[in-house]
Amino acid sequence: MPEEFLNLVHLDEAVRLLLEGLPEGGVATEEVEVSSALGRVIAGDIIAPEDVPGFDRSGMDGFAVRASDTFAASEGLPVYLERTGEVPMGRATAIEVAQEQAVRISTGGVMPEGSDAVVMVENTEVSRETVEVVKGVAPGENVIRKDEDIARGALLFSRGRVLGPAQAGALVALGITKVSVYRLPVVGIISTGNELVPPSETPGPGQVRDVNSTALAASVVRAGCLARPYGIVADEFGLLLEASRRALAECDALVISGGSSMGVRDLTVDILDQLGPPGTLAHGIYLKPGKPTLIAVCDGKPALGLPGNPASALTVFGEVMVPVLAALRGENKRGGPRTVQAVLDRSVASATGRLELVPVSLGLEGELLKATPIPGKTNLIGTLARADGNVRIPEGREGIERGERVTVELHDPFTTGRGERAQ
Amino acid sequence: MPEEFLNLVHLDEAVRLLLEGLPEGGVATEEVEVSSALGRVIAGDIIAPEDVPGFDRSGMDGFAVRASDTFAASEGLPVYLERTGEVPMGRATAIEVAQEQAVRISTGGVMPEGSDAVVMVENTEVSRETVEVVKGVAPGENVIRKDEDIARGALLFSRGRVLGPAQAGALVALGITKVSVYRLPVVGIISTGNELVPPSETPGPGQVRDVNSTALAASVVRAGCLARPYGIVADEFGLLLEASRRALAECDALVISGGSSMGVRDLTVDILDQLGPPGTLAHGIYLKPGKPTLIAVCDGKPALGLPGNPASALTVFGEVMVPVLAALRGENKRGGPRTVQAVLDRSVASATGRLELVPVSLGLEGELLKATPIPGKTNLIGTLARADGNVRIPEGREGIERGERVTVELHDPFTTGRGERAQ
Repeated sequence: MPEEFLNLVHLDEAVRLLLEGLPEGGVATEEVEVSSALGRVIAGDIIAPEDVPGFDRSGMDGFAVRASDTFAASEGLPVYLERTGEVPMGRATAIEVAQEQAVRISTGGVMPEGSDAVVMVENTEVSRETVEVVKGVAPGENVIRKDEDIARGALLFSRGRVLGPAQAGALVALGITKVSVYRLPVVGIISTGNELVPPSETPGPGQVRDVNSTALAASVVRAGCLARPYGIVADEFGLLLEASRRALAECDALVISGGSSMGVRDLTVDILDQLGPPGTLAHGIYLKPGKPTLIAVCDGKPALGLPGNPASALTVFGEVMVPVLAALRGENKRGGPRTVQAVLDRSVASATGRLELVPVSLGLEGELLKATPIPGKTNLIGTLARADGNVRIPEGREGIERGERVTVELHDPFTTGRGERAQ
Repeated sequence: MPEEFLNLVHLDEAVRLLLEGLPEGGVATEEVEVSSALGRVIAGDIIAPEDVPGFDRSGMDGFAVRASDTFAASEGLPVYLERTGEVPMGRATAIEVAQEQAVRISTGGVMPEGSDAVVMVENTEVSRETVEVVKGVAPGENVIRKDEDIARGALLFSRGRVLGPAQAGALVALGITKVSVYRLPVVGIISTGNELVPPSETPGPGQVRDVNSTALAASVVRAGCLARPYGIVADEFGLLLEASRRALAECDALVISGGSSMGVRDLTVDILDQLGPPGTLAHGIYLKPGKPTLIAVCDGKPALGLPGNPASALTVFGEVMVPVLAALRGENKRGGPRTVQAVLDRSVASATGRLELVPVSLGLEGELLKATPIPGKTNLIGTLARADGNVRIPEGREGIERGERVTVELHDPFTTGRGERAQ
């Protein structure tokens, strides 16, 4: 048995070898518009420069009141308040709410001076001069405090967070329209094999079309990186070394596919060893398909020798290279499935009688994945932007107990990158 | 209680109302390069125009032989064959394999005339003139038949398939470099609310920044569609109607966000009713967050009145609009989580001792989701391109029995679209 087949590693070891070979801390950054930064990775911690919403707002349509005036209210014994005007939308108001007064307010309106709660319109009967309140409110009820969504000085995101729609929304809410993100890694793609012809050509006897340049480029884009295909290079040491050197110099990572036959594998090992230290680290993976994969790091850049077989090449790329590219992209989370099983670490109640989506953050506690409901109102952009996913409380359930196993539906940033084909 | 709150629907009903309102069959198509069609939806059935690989190929490095010559071979009693030359890569070969002969062949080489199997190099001892075979092969063993990956005339994909890396690879393998796909749907986005200012402005008293134009545009892109934001429109019937009319005319779907307060909700209902029949179909959803959502179809186009609250708007968009956009994109599968639980409907063995990824297709049988291992070798691009996902057989397991519950890791086309911001 040829020697190189003796140095096989397990899948997680293959990924670890590549990750350990990356240089410390060194991904370049650039400034981009938030509106075109979807899928990009935030390069610095974001500290909120101001409060959101910035003023105490009504969370409901109803009447701004002094809560203490309504404590006694019930269906049988309503409280009657004096109706005095209406808060305009989008403007400050000079209206004040005195004792036993109620001021009409819409969702999002500024809480008028003197008021501390909003009675929902559903819990009132309104005449021209009087508001009949049939259910009391507590101080703060149906009010969104001026710093309740995002508080000035709070850490909104740590660097490494992937920018999804909710994160973009939270930045924009703060007036942050440009953001520093990590540069997109460029992945060089070389197809080697004397039997390969470009896709547009008709293969002669014994020839096949080069599938990997197209399919791997698509995989690179799907992983949120830039693909730079270098075309088909013949199985000839000098030519392949020259193309690989150029690709490694111009790119952040390199995949050479085609070396499944032993001659080409040996050639590829030699080339990976010449590209820069430490060179080839493993000569295969305990994985089907994908065993004949070469794992290398050359001058701090990950390089793979993939099987020529496209199905094997794509599978290994997804299993081995995608997590490494996530790290090169600067992500602090490494992808994974779109739903995960976790244990809820705080009970949540649902009294709405509706299907309820509860935003949660995820964290490992030893081996246990814990889902923590985000504190605060669930309908705030700051809450959504901090969440890793949702837990679903079906209609008719009154909540989920601490300690129950839940399925977390992960938000997009875990799963989707966005890249392009480099020029 | 205002009348519109009485007409609430469940989440699945909201989606169904919108889907039923779409016109029959009518998404336009366009021709695009396969290399830039990632995430696009294939608009016609793809029938393979030729065989892949197109010739009988070796699947291993080894020796092309007549299988019958090796039947008796074992470690204790090897068979000795005459060594006669080597098959070149990427060319036809005139070499023939006569009885008791063996010809050196690399993975991917053309099977020479007369041979019907390949003995892996690991199962041979080779001298200059003789090949000692220590393990027999069956006819066809380690050979990929000329139509084994994709057979000419076979249905490769049905229309509605999302083009991922494996699908792009399969097309290119067939020499198909351009493909007909559905046009990307354009989603118009209007933010309404007199309290809104653009993200770049500093809000005055009672004002907040328009978050939804940015966040919903990102959601549209993530759903694989084109976003066309129309900016902030004041809560004024004439202005909002004019902007909505224009947006609906220019786009395939419309979302108006901002109408959470009753006045604006009523205004939005009136506008959705004026845009085209049937207009507003439901005035709310049994969902938290997101109850005050308006569901409408106007002249065959879906239109939503979303809550102004960004967290609610994003959540409802994801739950209600994304499945509808998948349909507008022409997808024949409707997204969903990235892993699903299914029942395996054919046993698979794994004798490799390695972690094994088995490509499966998914199908509903009544209420039961079944995972069917794709027949044929797992390392073929045609196999991978037909699969919906993988089942993992861990190292040390000898297979999975028919009827076992399995977790299927879905391939990307289920989860990821790719879009852009429209001009």
